Amino acid sequence: METKETTYTLCPKFEKAFSILGKKWNGLIIDVLLQENEQRFVDMAHKIPMLSDRVLAERLKELEKEGIVSKTDGLYQLTDKGIGLKEVLNSVRHWSQDWLTEKECNFSRSTDSC
Amino acid sequence: METKETTYTLCPKFEKAFSILGKKWNGLIIDVLLQENEQRFVDMAHKIPMLSDRVLAERLKELEKEGIVSKTDGLYQLTDKGIGLKEVLNSVRHWSQDWLTEKECNFSRSTDSC
Repeated sequence: METKETTYTLCPKFEKAFSILGKKWNGLIIDVLLQENEQRFVDMAHKIPMLSDRVLAERLKELEKEGIVSKTDGLYQLTDKGIGLKEVLNSVRHWSQDWLTEKECNFSRSTDSC
Repeated sequence: METKETTYTLCPKFEKAFSILGKKWNGLIIDVLLQENEQRFVDMAHKIPMLSDRVLAERLKELEKEGIVSKTDGLYQLTDKGIGLKEVLNSVRHWSQDWLTEKECNFSRSTDSC
């Protein structure tokens, strides 16, 4: 206990949150569902043309497992837990808009959704 | 252009932000500097005992390269870009507190910093 007041440990919840959000495409998939909840797979696939059907299906299954997305009658929607990520995505968007340049992102892709 | 209004692409800035924050320990390192800016390497190492000196040095170098941390006279501090992450870390913390259970995080480590 002697140094506890100045000792930090990695918060597993904090790390878990970043491991979900840090996984490529997850942020965008959640974003697409935040724009319009309840969407069919084909609609989502159509909206994210750069994402293969295989990867989209994989990610949606993972997000379902995390309790962030649910599927009813063939429609995907965000759960309350998923909708709760709106503020997180917004704060990340604001920070990245304010502080990251396209050059340092080092991507050659379209930036339409930025 | 025909389907542009309903087409999403991955925003490179958004993805870049998550790639930085999603890297293990980065969130905690930034958090430690947000608590007290200007710290020596040994002080930071002492505060995060589970993190090896090698990994801490590596992460600090990466964060310096990203312009999030700067080093002057042996003292590490957050740049304005780094300080700007406060809101992001707070929103992730709130969401993870509200929605993630310790069980699903599947970690055996201490949750002191949660």
